[in-house]
Amino acid sequence: MTEGKSAFDALFHPRSISVIGASSNTAKLGGRTFRNLKDLGFQGSLYPIHNRDQEVQGIPAVPSVGDLPDDVDMAFILVPAPSVVQALEEYAAKGVRSAVVFSSGFAEVSEEGRASQERITALAKETGMRIVGPNCMGVMNVHEGMLGTFTSSFDYGLPSPGRISVVSQSGAFGAHCFVLARERGLGLNLWATTGNECDVDVADCLGYMAQDPQTEVILCYMEGCKSKERLVGALEIALQRNKPVVMLKVGRTEVGAEAASSHTASLVGSDAVYDAIFKQYGVHRAETIEELTDICYACVAGRFPPGKRVGLVTISGGVGVVMADAASQAGLEVPPMPDETQKKLKKLLPFAAVRNPIDFTAQALTDTALVRQNLEIMLDEGGCDAVVLFLASVGLNPRLMGQLTDSLLELRKQFGQELIVMSILVREELKKTLEDAGFLLFEDPTRAIKAVAALMKFGEAFRNAGKKQPPPALPEGGLPFPTSTVGEYEAKRVLAAAGIPVVEERLAQSAEQAVAAAGELGYPVVLKIASPDIPHKSEIGGVVLNLDSAEAVAQAHAQLLERAREHQPNARIDGILVAAMVSGGVETILGVSRDPVFGPVVLFGLGGIFVEVMKDVTFRLAPFSVEEAHRMIREVRGYPLLEGVRGQPPADVEALAQALAQLSAFAAAHQERLETLDLNPFIVLPEGQGALAVDALIVPRED
Amino acid sequence: MTEGKSAFDALFHPRSISVIGASSNTAKLGGRTFRNLKDLGFQGSLYPIHNRDQEVQGIPAVPSVGDLPDDVDMAFILVPAPSVVQALEEYAAKGVRSAVVFSSGFAEVSEEGRASQERITALAKETGMRIVGPNCMGVMNVHEGMLGTFTSSFDYGLPSPGRISVVSQSGAFGAHCFVLARERGLGLNLWATTGNECDVDVADCLGYMAQDPQTEVILCYMEGCKSKERLVGALEIALQRNKPVVMLKVGRTEVGAEAASSHTASLVGSDAVYDAIFKQYGVHRAETIEELTDICYACVAGRFPPGKRVGLVTISGGVGVVMADAASQAGLEVPPMPDETQKKLKKLLPFAAVRNPIDFTAQALTDTALVRQNLEIMLDEGGCDAVVLFLASVGLNPRLMGQLTDSLLELRKQFGQELIVMSILVREELKKTLEDAGFLLFEDPTRAIKAVAALMKFGEAFRNAGKKQPPPALPEGGLPFPTSTVGEYEAKRVLAAAGIPVVEERLAQSAEQAVAAAGELGYPVVLKIASPDIPHKSEIGGVVLNLDSAEAVAQAHAQLLERAREHQPNARIDGILVAAMVSGGVETILGVSRDPVFGPVVLFGLGGIFVEVMKDVTFRLAPFSVEEAHRMIREVRGYPLLEGVRGQPPADVEALAQALAQLSAFAAAHQERLETLDLNPFIVLPEGQGALAVDALIVPRED
Repeated sequence: MTEGKSAFDALFHPRSISVIGASSNTAKLGGRTFRNLKDLGFQGSLYPIHNRDQEVQGIPAVPSVGDLPDDVDMAFILVPAPSVVQALEEYAAKGVRSAVVFSSGFAEVSEEGRASQERITALAKETGMRIVGPNCMGVMNVHEGMLGTFTSSFDYGLPSPGRISVVSQSGAFGAHCFVLARERGLGLNLWATTGNECDVDVADCLGYMAQDPQTEVILCYMEGCKSKERLVGALEIALQRNKPVVMLKVGRTEVGAEAASSHTASLVGSDAVYDAIFKQYGVHRAETIEELTDICYACVAGRFPPGKRVGLVTISGGVGVVMADAASQAGLEVPPMPDETQKKLKKLLPFAAVRNPIDFTAQALTDTALVRQNLEIMLDEGGCDAVVLFLASVGLNPRLMGQLTDSLLELRKQFGQELIVMSILVREELKKTLEDAGFLLFEDPTRAIKAVAALMKFGEAFRNAGKKQPPPALPEGGLPFPTSTVGEYEAKRVLAAAGIPVVEERLAQSAEQAVAAAGELGYPVVLKIASPDIPHKSEIGGVVLNLDSAEAVAQAHAQLLERAREHQPNARIDGILVAAMVSGGVETILGVSRDPVFGPVVLFGLGGIFVEVMKDVTFRLAPFSVEEAHRMIREVRGYPLLEGVRGQPPADVEALAQALAQLSAFAAAHQERLETLDLNPFIVLPEGQGALAVDALIVPRED
Repeated sequence: MTEGKSAFDALFHPRSISVIGASSNTAKLGGRTFRNLKDLGFQGSLYPIHNRDQEVQGIPAVPSVGDLPDDVDMAFILVPAPSVVQALEEYAAKGVRSAVVFSSGFAEVSEEGRASQERITALAKETGMRIVGPNCMGVMNVHEGMLGTFTSSFDYGLPSPGRISVVSQSGAFGAHCFVLARERGLGLNLWATTGNECDVDVADCLGYMAQDPQTEVILCYMEGCKSKERLVGALEIALQRNKPVVMLKVGRTEVGAEAASSHTASLVGSDAVYDAIFKQYGVHRAETIEELTDICYACVAGRFPPGKRVGLVTISGGVGVVMADAASQAGLEVPPMPDETQKKLKKLLPFAAVRNPIDFTAQALTDTALVRQNLEIMLDEGGCDAVVLFLASVGLNPRLMGQLTDSLLELRKQFGQELIVMSILVREELKKTLEDAGFLLFEDPTRAIKAVAALMKFGEAFRNAGKKQPPPALPEGGLPFPTSTVGEYEAKRVLAAAGIPVVEERLAQSAEQAVAAAGELGYPVVLKIASPDIPHKSEIGGVVLNLDSAEAVAQAHAQLLERAREHQPNARIDGILVAAMVSGGVETILGVSRDPVFGPVVLFGLGGIFVEVMKDVTFRLAPFSVEEAHRMIREVRGYPLLEGVRGQPPADVEALAQALAQLSAFAAAHQERLETLDLNPFIVLPEGQGALAVDALIVPRED
């Protein structure tokens, strides 16, 4: 064993590997894996274990694990499932610190397999050995030529070394990724498939890659994650180090989720929670495999623009419109060029449209100096954070493209830092020249725009991470968390003590107390039955609104008690709640629910049909800052309602954001006890007037 | 002139072409266009006009248009803008029936240019000559080698003949299309760019292509259309002949629309209206250029599945999930395989997931007979309308792929009609073999799924077109259409007479009449001020709800008159409206607005914030059938509200659909007089109880 290395270093930078199940027959997985290790550039020592043969594929065999030297970093296990545990035990006894179990036949096939897999998990815990798999396709360090996988696709091309690291729960998908990367000309660094994740999981690998100095972009395929701490920890490191994580997380729709759970034995959390995490940690969630590679490709250039303003240049007006549409749909701005700039551009190209998109028409290509001048003016004065240039199929025309390339390379020297993306059909060689100069190239203009949008979002996430605020503190002297479901009065008292604004109210035990309370609160008031046994009060007429006199209050008091008696004679009645009448404002819903993996998840949505019909809600893991709450609020489609529509004043979004963040802190503080929590409705009053919970429900976890 | 041909036949199938502005210098547009006509396969006669040279590029020149023989079908005009009108006049005098004006410098640059262009339009009308352009890139008939355009990209490859016809308003985009088609291996038939559309427009070409027996798919790029009749007529023919139209219509977002209107001098109608037309006529509106070519590629195979059930087969479980997600998002069904089928599949491949997606894992590829057996079972018994097969990068492995191809080709013979789509990385030659056998191939699985969804939608549109219902008839004895804006009472009488259900109500001139009316209608009732001068009654308290006694009615009557006097002393008061109180039901909005190009457009949306915040509305051109109204209603995102949420009963969607269709017939009948019409709210009662307009407003056109 090499000293000073972590088990993870041993996994990704081994200097010596022992392979059990290695074979001279390369039609077998053990033979192919061994050949890939032996022939494709790995410089370390290889120790095949074989109890009969003297050598495997020309490398001296070691008769048993016990006969190995002491400096073995990693073991590759390719024996049948029933022999895996013993092999691991022997390697562990030999002090080997990491292992990759390729063998299948575990939790994915049977209960017996699951039991074996649990023994491997236990072994990893006992010995500290880090174990990848079982049922995986191995690991690679492309820079070190350690291509530890059994794929046969290396016959048709090797992965090239680069700055993208890949971690995939699925072996087949991981293999597909390196073929896609190779075909796209993308270089890889580390690569791991985690399979059944008996010990090492996607989050572990993500965390290692986030800290790996040679990794600049992480491509991740995930079906589910069992550890909040590891996943969130890894994403936090990546974010702090400005390393984009591009994620394909499967299981978005119901059908998809069904397929995901039959595919692996993993626990797939609710998809909305993953969405929340990805937003919170600036992860780009790709919807398609093409998008996954597009965005990785774009990230490798390492240019994350400082803002969302994009300049569009085209030789076809129509495509200019297509790009402008796509940019606007992707949340980018397409600012008009300043007037002076427009004049300059117009002088150069009288036929051109010069506002943005700039359409300098195909004619302009006959004078590439002119194209360069145009771009120079735009980059200099346009105030854009990125430029996208549509050049149709000019790249297929060697004469035109030769001149144009020279101009573009000159331009690149002048504007080294700018993100300049081209949509162009171009032959491979020229493509490489332009990419090496730092241009990004896409055939389709919409894909180019989407890539720019992703880079801009990463830029924003990295900047936000740099100035990340803590979640708010809870005030001193909070009330104890309820031990059983409590009615709204009690719930609101607990929330108010935690700094969450609630409607002012009193619990009255008599008509006289109710009238007195109304006097203190000021008319009009609302009266409600307060009973832990009647959660849906309004269904039995248990709420009376808009009472504007002592008589009305006294009458309503009697009426409510009567209705409770009538509908639920055995209900415990805490009293009658007298509350200030809240009128106006925008109805929202704040809530918390407990995810079995990720703990308390905070929900925000607009009230009523927005939530029930449109499912217009968004989530975050608790706790989070007021700034994060602001981002969250702006994500719902109904947000314009808070800005004021139909002549309504803008709502107090700051108060709402503070309440959301405060709720997240409260939920985090009580995560061991909290099952669900609802503030519904939570009314956001006009700007400057605050926001408050009108009703509340806290449900603690059952023990 | 050739007898028996239409001017459009002359345009797309000319036997002789005269080119004015032809030059021996191929650096000039006139030289390049002439060379392309001369050298690339056109078999007809060419008559270059040249007043000095004896020949142009070796072809004898004709000194002037007047000297031409009498059999010239088409003229290509490449002279400078100021000489264009004269040239056209001379050709027209010679009896030439079609012309293409390439020259720019018309409406797109100046008022003077616009005036010249108008002269061309007038000339076309006077002479019957059909004129394409100006400011266009020409026309082609690829089968006949008539490549009438000045592109230089033919130097790097010619378009190959095929079954897709292309019409593009933008020349540059049209040129880009044939390069994209060539790179994608798609064959073209007719191709036209319409430029400024002084006479021939996109719709004309669409109509010709829809009737052209050699055209099976139409790719169209459009910025705007000036004629409803031509566009709708063309799309109707395409639909009736089962020819898919794949459309890129630019100007979707505000920024995009701005760019579109600065790009051409064309009138760009409201984008929502185009969406309505495309839905109504089964046009696939592509959002991206890539999608445009993807869907055309898919359509060429001519397989439009009979339903929406898709079977998914994969060698990576993860990608199975990606495909299932994409299918579900695209509105496809991913039905589980029947139990018996699952058993059979499981027997063949014990490790496979067999529900749907079927994941037969990469292992299965080692036995291609097994793959074939699997697919056979699935196609035979799975009850799917299409199958998508993810094969990762197997196509790059010649050994595996060779065997697999044989199996797949066998399978194709057995299931000749099925739509089978593969997502696979594959080298060009093998790709062609599989495509020739009728498989569709995409690299990205999501793009494969989207193509299947598009084909399924086309199939649905073709089937619907086959059983298309007429719009409902208007009842006899309708009331005259109002000549000025009328109040809700009058509006509802007119609508009711047209067969559109409205709330039952009476106009009362006194408290006694109001009480009598309430008695007839039955309590509770609503009272409203009826005045053409007070359109927003509720703002001045002009509506009193839920009156349940004669006293209450009498009191409300007095109160309303008082309020009207107070707020608008000079308003004309028609009386007080007494209406039955409608309670329950779902609030919707029905409306009509007049589009300057497309006439009355019917709107449907759910009431309140659904319309105002979510813009959750959909449109159709009037008139349309009840069936079309049903499709329309199901398009809004809030549709679940009509199906019943929060314990509400399902709404009477049939009554709603009938009212929408009836409204469309009414709008069409009065399209010359109607400016806007609103039924807001239009209440849809629970199933079986009907639907009715509670308020209405009709605004006639100003003369």
